[in-house]
Amino acid sequence: MEHNSIITFLTDFGTKDPYVGIMKGVVLGITPNCHLIDLTHQVRPQNILQASYLLSVSYPYFPKGTFFVCVIDPGVGTQRKAVLVKAEGYHFIGPDNGLFGFLNNTPPKTIVHLQNEKYFMRPVSKTFHGRDIFAPVAAHLATKGEKIIPDLGPTLTHLVEIERFNPIEKPDSIEGTIVHIDRFGNLISNIHSRFLKGLTPSDMTIRFRRDDIPLVTTFAEAPEGVPGALIGSSSHLEIFVRNGSAEKTLNAKIGEAIHVLKHHG
Amino acid sequence: MEHNSIITFLTDFGTKDPYVGIMKGVVLGITPNCHLIDLTHQVRPQNILQASYLLSVSYPYFPKGTFFVCVIDPGVGTQRKAVLVKAEGYHFIGPDNGLFGFLNNTPPKTIVHLQNEKYFMRPVSKTFHGRDIFAPVAAHLATKGEKIIPDLGPTLTHLVEIERFNPIEKPDSIEGTIVHIDRFGNLISNIHSRFLKGLTPSDMTIRFRRDDIPLVTTFAEAPEGVPGALIGSSSHLEIFVRNGSAEKTLNAKIGEAIHVLKHHG
Amino acid sequence: MEHNSIITFLTDFGTKDPYVGIMKGVVLGITPNCHLIDLTHQVRPQNILQASYLLSVSYPYFPKGTFFVCVIDPGVGTQRKAVLVKAEGYHFIGPDNGLFGFLNNTPPKTIVHLQNEKYFMRPVSKTFHGRDIFAPVAAHLATKGEKIIPDLGPTLTHLVEIERFNPIEKPDSIEGTIVHIDRFGNLISNIHSRFLKGLTPSDMTIRFRRDDIPLVTTFAEAPEGVPGALIGSSSHLEIFVRNGSAEKTLNAKIGEAIHVLKHHG
Repeated sequence: MEHNSIITFLTDFGTKDPYVGIMKGVVLGITPNCHLIDLTHQVRPQNILQASYLLSVSYPYFPKGTFFVCVIDPGVGTQRKAVLVKAEGYHFIGPDNGLFGFLNNTPPKTIVHLQNEKYFMRPVSKTFHGRDIFAPVAAHLATKGEKIIPDLGPTLTHLVEIERFNPIEKPDSIEGTIVHIDRFGNLISNIHSRFLKGLTPSDMTIRFRRDDIPLVTTFAEAPEGVPGALIGSSSHLEIFVRNGSAEKTLNAKIGEAIHVLKHHG
Repeated sequence: MEHNSIITFLTDFGTKDPYVGIMKGVVLGITPNCHLIDLTHQVRPQNILQASYLLSVSYPYFPKGTFFVCVIDPGVGTQRKAVLVKAEGYHFIGPDNGLFGFLNNTPPKTIVHLQNEKYFMRPVSKTFHGRDIFAPVAAHLATKGEKIIPDLGPTLTHLVEIERFNPIEKPDSIEGTIVHIDRFGNLISNIHSRFLKGLTPSDMTIRFRRDDIPLVTTFAEAPEGVPGALIGSSSHLEIFVRNGSAEKTLNAKIGEAIHVLKHHG
Repeated sequence: MEHNSIITFLTDFGTKDPYVGIMKGVVLGITPNCHLIDLTHQVRPQNILQASYLLSVSYPYFPKGTFFVCVIDPGVGTQRKAVLVKAEGYHFIGPDNGLFGFLNNTPPKTIVHLQNEKYFMRPVSKTFHGRDIFAPVAAHLATKGEKIIPDLGPTLTHLVEIERFNPIEKPDSIEGTIVHIDRFGNLISNIHSRFLKGLTPSDMTIRFRRDDIPLVTTFAEAPEGVPGALIGSSSHLEIFVRNGSAEKTLNAKIGEAIHVLKHHG
């Protein structure tokens, strides 16, 4: 059974440094039989909102039981808690800084405040809890199983929330946020297609800053060089520039607002 | 036996996004016992010629039976076919858009048009067949074996060809193409050393644009800052600038022509 | 037992090219039961000092027995030796060009000059010993065990040293070197905290070029935009710019000097 353990990693460490490799070394010293999978290490430094988005669209594609070690941790060394969240059959391990806030809406779940140093690398540094707490706890869980959960620390009832993970729904509009910019410079918003249910393209206007962005269903429908909007492969509304980069064309940033204005016929 | 399955990935997805991790999650949900290996995810967006070159120089180093999931797929969502190619003891899975055209010359082989949705993730999206078709088909094959091949779909007799995968041989010259630019800015051509068989350096002139490029046998022989040519570690003719970047020095692009002019004494 | 073999890779190959994937293919053709782990492939081209630093701070986190295949190899094809070093229970495999020089101080150890072509890919190229020598030797060792060590080649007594791996200790100062620049542009020196033992912040001045750099204990203590110094998570003295890049602010390079001036009260 242990053989099938899957431990994934999501960080803002980049790939120039050996930090990800070091976390894998720590895991393998505890549990040799597991798959070690990288989600991405290119989260913008300390961007919890982006990490939260990337995690939320990735985890459902993994088998139940998968471990998600997430290290976007600007508060490392402060009072922020280290947590294990068991939700929807998955295990999420990392800092309680909003990264896992979207899981508050998925009952029932278990949240554990990781306190038992028996499962840590010691001494625990002030700067690298991925190596010293999150990776070893995932590895111990992978090899020893859920029976150790009560031994990891006290339970919590609620995770720190994160603002703007979901858009704000108003009677006449949806206020969204750019939460990720992909390799192609597409601006991906937090407006999942479910928020647009029942709306046809003629029922709404997509607005970014002061401009209306035409909504299309495939990249090929848009003229080159001009921003367009569509529902992407992760089911979120995004802004793109065909054969170009919306990020560069618009000089856009993660965190900017995007609006859907609803028409009433 | 399944334990030794090797599934490799070649894409233009980059590593900022979670798409590669998602494909691996899909695979592991179907077959937990496999190696998941990245060839590269830095293929230039939609550059089928470059991907085809990279695949062709990589696959022979893997053990027979290895799966190559290749997702350079500008035509995703259109009528282009999804295929499995069994050739030379390997399995290639991806779009039939020229990427696998070089395998037309390797008889005998099996080409299957992937149509049986039983082996797909459903619903199949219009934009991400790597996740919905190619990865799950590779995983099903890895775990169930070749006996399912007849069930995957009808066979085809020929793969879509790709232009310029091989150079054009003429009586007095060889017309090649730059098919890859490596980390160091070296311009790698499609002229494999076998096309130069029987030629000594004094029998030929390497020409790029209007310039003759001196042919050497090691980087160290060339002066710094000036383009030189040699046969690289993958046995292809390449243009380099010692301690510099030929890509930057020459402002060169994948797809440009390179010529070998043959002398007749 | 073989199942638990761990083979790690440290190179300057980058991730645009298929070279790392090819080495893994070669390994899997020899030993299917192993973990293949990337340390980093973003070592600056041919920067042995940086690679040596990265290796030295990474390997202790891996379980004993782990293989470290290291390919930073500017002298490939020349007379530099290919070696296996067994030290501290680990196996290091690569060129004897200084990369492993820091292991000279860790007795007892075994150094083998890799000469037996039986364990190589043949023919051995002049340009890619990672594929042709280092990866296959690691794989043969992983699957056949240490009993083949005497068959690999003659033993050596000493590894090529590397300058500036350690700082130079003088009565009134420590002369260090920048050996790595991380993702955030932090300048990491070869001055491990053990060289500062017994010194309090008021006992020393950190000097970079002609400037004194204030020494702090956490990033948060430093003003934004101005260089600060601290002991980082790998226990080395580093220079940073809070919410910025010391690399860019100072236009700094690996190899530059950094001094610790000791005060005598």
